[in-house]
Amino acid sequence: MSQLAQEKIVSACMIIIGNEILSGRTQDVNLAFLSKELNELGVRLLEARIIPDVEDVIVDTVNECRQKFDYVFTTGGIGPTHDDITADCIAKAFAVELFIHPEAEKIIRRREVPEDIMRSRLRMARLPVGGELIQNPTGGPPGFKMGNVFVMAGVPMVMQAMVSTLADGQVKGGDPVRSRSVAAYLSEGEIAEALGEIQDRYPQVELGSYPFYRKDGYGVNLVMSGTDEGELETMKQEVCSLVVSFDVEVISVD
Amino acid sequence: MSQLAQEKIVSACMIIIGNEILSGRTQDVNLAFLSKELNELGVRLLEARIIPDVEDVIVDTVNECRQKFDYVFTTGGIGPTHDDITADCIAKAFAVELFIHPEAEKIIRRREVPEDIMRSRLRMARLPVGGELIQNPTGGPPGFKMGNVFVMAGVPMVMQAMVSTLADGQVKGGDPVRSRSVAAYLSEGEIAEALGEIQDRYPQVELGSYPFYRKDGYGVNLVMSGTDEGELETMKQEVCSLVVSFDVEVISVD
Repeated sequence: MSQLAQEKIVSACMIIIGNEILSGRTQDVNLAFLSKELNELGVRLLEARIIPDVEDVIVDTVNECRQKFDYVFTTGGIGPTHDDITADCIAKAFAVELFIHPEAEKIIRRREVPEDIMRSRLRMARLPVGGELIQNPTGGPPGFKMGNVFVMAGVPMVMQAMVSTLADGQVKGGDPVRSRSVAAYLSEGEIAEALGEIQDRYPQVELGSYPFYRKDGYGVNLVMSGTDEGELETMKQEVCSLVVSFDVEVISVD
Repeated sequence: MSQLAQEKIVSACMIIIGNEILSGRTQDVNLAFLSKELNELGVRLLEARIIPDVEDVIVDTVNECRQKFDYVFTTGGIGPTHDDITADCIAKAFAVELFIHPEAEKIIRRREVPEDIMRSRLRMARLPVGGELIQNPTGGPPGFKMGNVFVMAGVPMVMQAMVSTLADGQVKGGDPVRSRSVAAYLSEGEIAEALGEIQDRYPQVELGSYPFYRKDGYGVNLVMSGTDEGELETMKQEVCSLVVSFDVEVISVD
């Protein structure tokens, strides 16, 4: 693969909307899921922002990020309650009105509820003018896409179902990003110099070093990621050789 | 407590530096820890950014956030390897040089290692000129504070030990932020209107509604947070009454 082909990076930013994540009461698990799925689609998640349910902040963040990255994915704030303001904010960011999307309305009306409850639920049928639905395979209200911004639910089961529909040509990436990792009970300091030299020899592959502490002692995870499988394999062998040269066993490799 | 007193919010932003978090290989747990500790100190975490180990991105993000928020807390990138560039980036952001901090050097030299390894480890003694140490109660290399930016380790055990030292007057907040939560097997749509009315009556308290799906069915967590304990208690009672008015049991309240 040519160097040129590898340099064309399709980028994404994730915007996690929700006080419950920022407060630490709820642990986000959507980022890891999205990041891995995007890697498969050849899109690199280059940044994530966790922001509160505050209109100005959401509008400004969306507007900044949709200029800066090829794709933006938001999670959270598309339910029926007063603190669900993502659709309103996306409309404001794009300076358009909201409308009731007929297909979204049909999906929501499938479940029969008293009229006052339906009124709240129909908030979830509102899309900014120009928006298109993101299907929700769980059968609940859909998400939507507006320009390069994909607006999804925050509940992981629903978010993941929505993401599973993105492979259907809606997101156009480059080569899939693959990774290799090697773990060993070595301190980072011991291998730092040699590791830097390996990184210098493989500028196309990102080589990360992540220390860990387990009951058996401290160690390091060495992670390589890039788009060229051959290069990744060669580099992995070099990293394994480096570990062994310290008379230390490689404890895991994948 | 007067409305005025409550409006003085001391704000913070967290910058999580590391490809390993963005890639989804490692699950961040530091945000939840920091957010709760800051609440106790009367500081509100208003935003978090997860960014890669890329110099320009780190420098720009730090410079933007240190203007925008009262405090900035970074995690990650302060180890001894080639991908640990946080100290260099903070120095660049503040347009100062790095220097070897004598106390940090002393701490690092406590552990005897061959000279080439010590060379890598001493990278961790580098501070931007004007920086001050953040103590590391685990005995490892310290973090540092530069202006309103607190630079900490990414490994949770070490990060948490560093955060525990912040109560020592280094961070000056307002009133501690408290929360109450009520959970019930109700759909958000059912209570959306009534919930909006409660929120309108208590503008000082943030009322969030977070749906969940468990094997027993779907339900909702209603979370109130604010600085006035009395108001929080009254509001919690109203929320409980609302739930009961639907002939539904409150399944948890705290």
